[in-house]
Amino acid sequence: MRDAYHEELDSIGEGLVEMARLVGSAIGRATTAILDSDLKLAETVIEGDKKVDDLQHDLEARAIALLARQQPVATDLRIVVTSLRMSADLERSGDLAQHVAKLARLRFPERAVPQDLHATILEMGQLAQRLMAKAAEVIVTKDIDLAMQLEQDDDEMDLLHRTLFQHLIDDRWKHGIETAVDVTLLGRYYERYADHAVAVAKRVVYLVTGEHADDLQQDIPPVTRVEGA
Amino acid sequence: MRDAYHEELDSIGEGLVEMARLVGSAIGRATTAILDSDLKLAETVIEGDKKVDDLQHDLEARAIALLARQQPVATDLRIVVTSLRMSADLERSGDLAQHVAKLARLRFPERAVPQDLHATILEMGQLAQRLMAKAAEVIVTKDIDLAMQLEQDDDEMDLLHRTLFQHLIDDRWKHGIETAVDVTLLGRYYERYADHAVAVAKRVVYLVTGEHADDLQQDIPPVTRVEGA
Repeated sequence: MRDAYHEELDSIGEGLVEMARLVGSAIGRATTAILDSDLKLAETVIEGDKKVDDLQHDLEARAIALLARQQPVATDLRIVVTSLRMSADLERSGDLAQHVAKLARLRFPERAVPQDLHATILEMGQLAQRLMAKAAEVIVTKDIDLAMQLEQDDDEMDLLHRTLFQHLIDDRWKHGIETAVDVTLLGRYYERYADHAVAVAKRVVYLVTGEHADDLQQDIPPVTRVEGA
Repeated sequence: MRDAYHEELDSIGEGLVEMARLVGSAIGRATTAILDSDLKLAETVIEGDKKVDDLQHDLEARAIALLARQQPVATDLRIVVTSLRMSADLERSGDLAQHVAKLARLRFPERAVPQDLHATILEMGQLAQRLMAKAAEVIVTKDIDLAMQLEQDDDEMDLLHRTLFQHLIDDRWKHGIETAVDVTLLGRYYERYADHAVAVAKRVVYLVTGEHADDLQQDIPPVTRVEGA
């Protein structure tokens, strides 16, 4: 009985890794789609999100069934409850990748991102994808040091976000309001995506160490932070 | 034993209602703070969010202890797991109210919202507060009809959000890029706040009917919807 139980627990972990893999690929493709104005690629991200949602529903149902059937306590209980939270983070990351892709579709055949911000958005997209890849690795390896690295990567994301805002409020901005709105939302999507990846890694830390990381929910927009509020 | 158990379950429900009350008040005060450029009021929201976070941690700890001690099944298990999710929605709503307040603080003594958008932002703030009040009422009464009303209110929020974006991308916009960025973020905060209130109500529906509302996670930005993507 305990073996079937731990198999089920493992398969929940595998489901989380699969979700992370899908939403990592999604943010990478969404970034390419928005930079290249590639409608077909954008559509694959938009349609692909359903699979992420299905995986989450499936994973939740299995987690709840496990709670009901096996009534785990202590560490095992903590694993199941934390898995529910991680699946919510991953599902939300998928939504955010989808938002990027929808913006690409909305502006097609135009490009939503002006040329002088391409490098910054590309870097944000790549960093987001890397953060999610590391989060998946943390789920598998339970490597606390790697989990800690994600926080540093997230600082890098904040820096990129700040760069983006500085471009926006620069007097020389010449791309108009609509593009400013698009870029503001894009920046927010990448930043929130990164927050969720970091949250996933921190939840693993909590599982391993039993200690809550307090700053899971920090997502003060960098425009606020830059200017000293 | 079962009585102590149901008392504990009730007290978790009361904790959720208290969280909803706090974050409802927070979004109301944050809206006044940003419209009046009231620094002191903004500070009360920013500092008050700690209490919401504390309540959530406390509520989570009690829910997990309940799972471990009482090992509920069926409906009771569903209530506890759903409560965990609701507390996450409410905590996040508090963050969003705090973001509005931080923007008020950042722009003080200037006003972040230009006069011609005051009415729209006021309406978004009031609607957000009303949505949360209804969500709290749904937690208490388990009134499915009321829960359904929240979806209509949310449509109203989408409409307001669209109005906001139409103002932004109107050629006559004369408030500059920084204000456009502020208003874009504000619109997003209110819309997400409303989404979380609706999610709380829908989770109650799920508890009562056992049926999942599929569209819990929809938060496609209205700029996308307006323009037909």
